[in-house]
Amino acid sequence: MTPLADQLAFLLELDKLKAVLRRTRPVGLERYENSAEHSWHVALMAMLLAEHAEPAVDVNRVVKLLLVHDIVEIDADDTFLYDEAGAAAKAIKEVAAAERLFGLLPPAQRDEFMALWREYEDRATPEGRFAYACDRLLPMLQNLANDGIGWRENAVRFEQVIRKNLPIDDAAPALWQYVLPRLEAAREAGWLG
Amino acid sequence: MTPLADQLAFLLELDKLKAVLRRTRPVGLERYENSAEHSWHVALMAMLLAEHAEPAVDVNRVVKLLLVHDIVEIDADDTFLYDEAGAAAKAIKEVAAAERLFGLLPPAQRDEFMALWREYEDRATPEGRFAYACDRLLPMLQNLANDGIGWRENAVRFEQVIRKNLPIDDAAPALWQYVLPRLEAAREAGWLG
Repeated sequence: MTPLADQLAFLLELDKLKAVLRRTRPVGLERYENSAEHSWHVALMAMLLAEHAEPAVDVNRVVKLLLVHDIVEIDADDTFLYDEAGAAAKAIKEVAAAERLFGLLPPAQRDEFMALWREYEDRATPEGRFAYACDRLLPMLQNLANDGIGWRENAVRFEQVIRKNLPIDDAAPALWQYVLPRLEAAREAGWLG
Repeated sequence: MTPLADQLAFLLELDKLKAVLRRTRPVGLERYENSAEHSWHVALMAMLLAEHAEPAVDVNRVVKLLLVHDIVEIDADDTFLYDEAGAAAKAIKEVAAAERLFGLLPPAQRDEFMALWREYEDRATPEGRFAYACDRLLPMLQNLANDGIGWRENAVRFEQVIRKNLPIDDAAPALWQYVLPRLEAAREAGWLG
């Protein structure tokens, strides 16, 4: 195949991410959100909120990390953040998924996409940490606007939310300061156990 | 409100784009695609295929144009490319939508997002033209992989497809050369009238 045919085979494979469901519902919709529409939302979120990153980040890089970060779910499916039993298997499945999916691409692009995915996963750069912080914050904002439905349906506890989302404070303390009192109010409202 | 509160109000408003349906179906799914997941897909497409742009483009700018380009559909809804009667009303509705939606943002960001949207619409820069070419090409590739279902369901004619999609040839001639013989084959297969 020519590189273009390989690129287009990968492009059409991406349609499958539209069938991967998360535990979050878009505000105002009954259905669950899928990982493709989530990826758009969180990439735009990074554009909107980049000024709150500490240290400052290259927003273009953050956007690329977020566009790529969930592609592995095509093979590995979405793992709920608070599914601690599923977390161990997640890493192994996702590496195999990355190898198959990015392996559809011409070699230079395969390496580029693999590096973007690993940078997101490793959180060793300011861009990786800020991308991760956006990905953590967005479903909390959706849950806060949705009477905590995603937390209530899955019996999520307040201390889990704090522990799992504390990395936001490292990458964007202003955003953590915004959300923390709202999480405390959600606990008082009974949305979090 | 503080700027952060304005930014987050806009961010949550974006959830509504997940309810705006297009006439295209993701390959392998029965349902129609929504404009949020499409926006993710086409932004990634630009990352994948930027090397085929002529002249060369700033891919980071193209990605931003594509992340923003359909937000106006939250108020204006999606207009089918081949709905020629709807095209006149579309421009008026979309300007009002852009003013309301981007007007939710702090002023500097309102201006930034408005400029991105206008650059996409105007197609006066290489980035605007390449972004538009990606947006045109992707549903054709999905239809070609889906036995032409989107064309057959909407009685789309071959000459309409050629006329509406010829701007691809201006921005990325290699992509147009790839798709043109496949459109001719689709006509021969009876997928296009």
